Amino acid sequence: MDRRSFLRTSALGGAAAASATLAAPVYAQGRRELTLVTSVPDGFAIFDDAAQMAVDYIAEMTDGQLTINKNPAGSLVGAFEVFDAVSSGQADLYHSAEYYFLNQHPAFAFFTSVPFGMTSQEMANWYYRRGGQDLHDNLSSLFNLKPFMCGMTAMQPGGWFNTEINSADDLQGLRFRMPGQGGQVLGRLGASVQNIPGGEIYQALSSGQIDGAEWIGPYADERMGFQEVTTNYYTSGFHEPGSALALVFNLEVWESLTPQQQKIVEIATTATHAQNTALSLAENGAALARLQAAGVQVREFPDDVWDAFGRASAEVREENMGDPIYAEIANSYFASLEESANWFEIGDGEYMRQRNRVNAA
Amino acid sequence: MDRRSFLRTSALGGAAAASATLAAPVYAQGRRELTLVTSVPDGFAIFDDAAQMAVDYIAEMTDGQLTINKNPAGSLVGAFEVFDAVSSGQADLYHSAEYYFLNQHPAFAFFTSVPFGMTSQEMANWYYRRGGQDLHDNLSSLFNLKPFMCGMTAMQPGGWFNTEINSADDLQGLRFRMPGQGGQVLGRLGASVQNIPGGEIYQALSSGQIDGAEWIGPYADERMGFQEVTTNYYTSGFHEPGSALALVFNLEVWESLTPQQQKIVEIATTATHAQNTALSLAENGAALARLQAAGVQVREFPDDVWDAFGRASAEVREENMGDPIYAEIANSYFASLEESANWFEIGDGEYMRQRNRVNAA
Repeated sequence: MDRRSFLRTSALGGAAAASATLAAPVYAQGRRELTLVTSVPDGFAIFDDAAQMAVDYIAEMTDGQLTINKNPAGSLVGAFEVFDAVSSGQADLYHSAEYYFLNQHPAFAFFTSVPFGMTSQEMANWYYRRGGQDLHDNLSSLFNLKPFMCGMTAMQPGGWFNTEINSADDLQGLRFRMPGQGGQVLGRLGASVQNIPGGEIYQALSSGQIDGAEWIGPYADERMGFQEVTTNYYTSGFHEPGSALALVFNLEVWESLTPQQQKIVEIATTATHAQNTALSLAENGAALARLQAAGVQVREFPDDVWDAFGRASAEVREENMGDPIYAEIANSYFASLEESANWFEIGDGEYMRQRNRVNAA
Repeated sequence: MDRRSFLRTSALGGAAAASATLAAPVYAQGRRELTLVTSVPDGFAIFDDAAQMAVDYIAEMTDGQLTINKNPAGSLVGAFEVFDAVSSGQADLYHSAEYYFLNQHPAFAFFTSVPFGMTSQEMANWYYRRGGQDLHDNLSSLFNLKPFMCGMTAMQPGGWFNTEINSADDLQGLRFRMPGQGGQVLGRLGASVQNIPGGEIYQALSSGQIDGAEWIGPYADERMGFQEVTTNYYTSGFHEPGSALALVFNLEVWESLTPQQQKIVEIATTATHAQNTALSLAENGAALARLQAAGVQVREFPDDVWDAFGRASAEVREENMGDPIYAEIANSYFASLEESANWFEIGDGEYMRQRNRVNAA
């Protein structure tokens, strides 16, 4: 198909965006349909669940006045082409993980997750209360985009391996699927890293094209069927301790929405964040138990492998600090992480230690 | 003032609720204003922030068609009278902490927090994904109410004490402010427990009426000014590891809203939950640092005091298990807690241990 030939399906078609003086008042009075492109197939657990939830919330809260037509990866554009499609105005908005777009700007990494970075709650603290959302706005505006955090996979396991990882040497030459800065870290440690869209990982793993892959977590990974083709599951990982998803509008499309519609979109994405985090964290435990019952071996990386991850992660993190936008975002991110992690240790951390100790007595 | 004399300010006044066949279609076409009563003064950090945020979200998302007139504790009814006022239809909805209403039913404890119970994320997992919301609906419907979780203070510190607590004996005779099952636990351990509304704690503490109090956490406690009158701050507590707030409608008022308005209320409360959790957890660290700089002594209870809390908490928890509604909710709550705590240990827990270890190296 010609991926550049489709038109947005908004009421006034493509011409409306060019005619900014007319757009807002006309849109405000009628029903409007927007074209959303995503990076995964329809129905993919956690990831597509977040997109579908936001779409549903927006339709219900506007009583059908603002509807969003969701197009899965590969139907209008490819999984990783959604950024350019929306930036250029070919589609109205995308739902994806921002770290797929490090070639557009390396700082997009921080709006998904970075190695040794924030857990899910630490990410919410930064994004909503310590300037993360403003920094995301500023970065995306350079590309004619208006973003929202919209979904949270929470801590992602180290992944599925067809061999055990007993030392950092075992990573040498390993053909592994991992996007973002995590993939860059594995590359520094000698792995042959591939960034494969979610919808194509199972095929790559089962055909032997790759030796291993990480995806999201027990609940989503189980639905992918990875347990059918490999059995070593490393349940803790260094690379994505709290991965956010994003719903991102073309900037002119965003500005053509009424203030009421804009507020509904904002609140719908915030509620989706809360619900998607709960979905991941409520379902992962039961899913892991099912995976283990099916023969999956749960493993943890040894400390010296974590140490190697730590050294390479620090190198990757420093690589782009010469870029002032990257540096501003990185500095904000790590300052918030340190502040919030300290309170977590004093609060939830001490409480959970005592709860475990008292319950065990 | 006569607290029973005010009328709801909805467009059709008190008579509308009695005339159910007319209510819905007439309300659907016009602007509507509801009367909200709360349990704290206006502007109280975290607690009133959550009520105000939900009120603002609802007004903005309905473009002013549904507005909520917020009345602080003591203006229309007292802090702890909001439940009866809304149940009876004297006010349209309340925002409060459900554990203030254990006299109405002891199981309301679970919809705020219980001793050795859930952290903030564990609570969201249960409420949104493991049946908590349905159980809350069922319990509240017995009182002509429709509830939503709407706000989250996160882990609450053990509180402010005018003496050090070096053993459980030091709790004997202590006059302490703590509501909910936590207060019942302290009572079993010999304390003289008082349930004082938030707006009256400072006065009670500074006048010597009580020897100590817990409220919410460093950020909210600092705004209360407790550091001016006592300096021993126990930063971890057994009693409220993740306290939810609630927005609760009179059932007829709820059913008279349009489906669109109902969805907007639901999503507004979910987004408020996410934002309020982030507010607490982003601000507490910095607030604690300011308190320490002002001379506050940060302390932790010794293990044998935690053990005493644990024994008394188990007793309090068992006390109401003969009530089938209480037992159903308790069993659901603790089953979800166990499942979700196990995954947390494997996921975030192992990750944070490794992050701390690697960063310290």
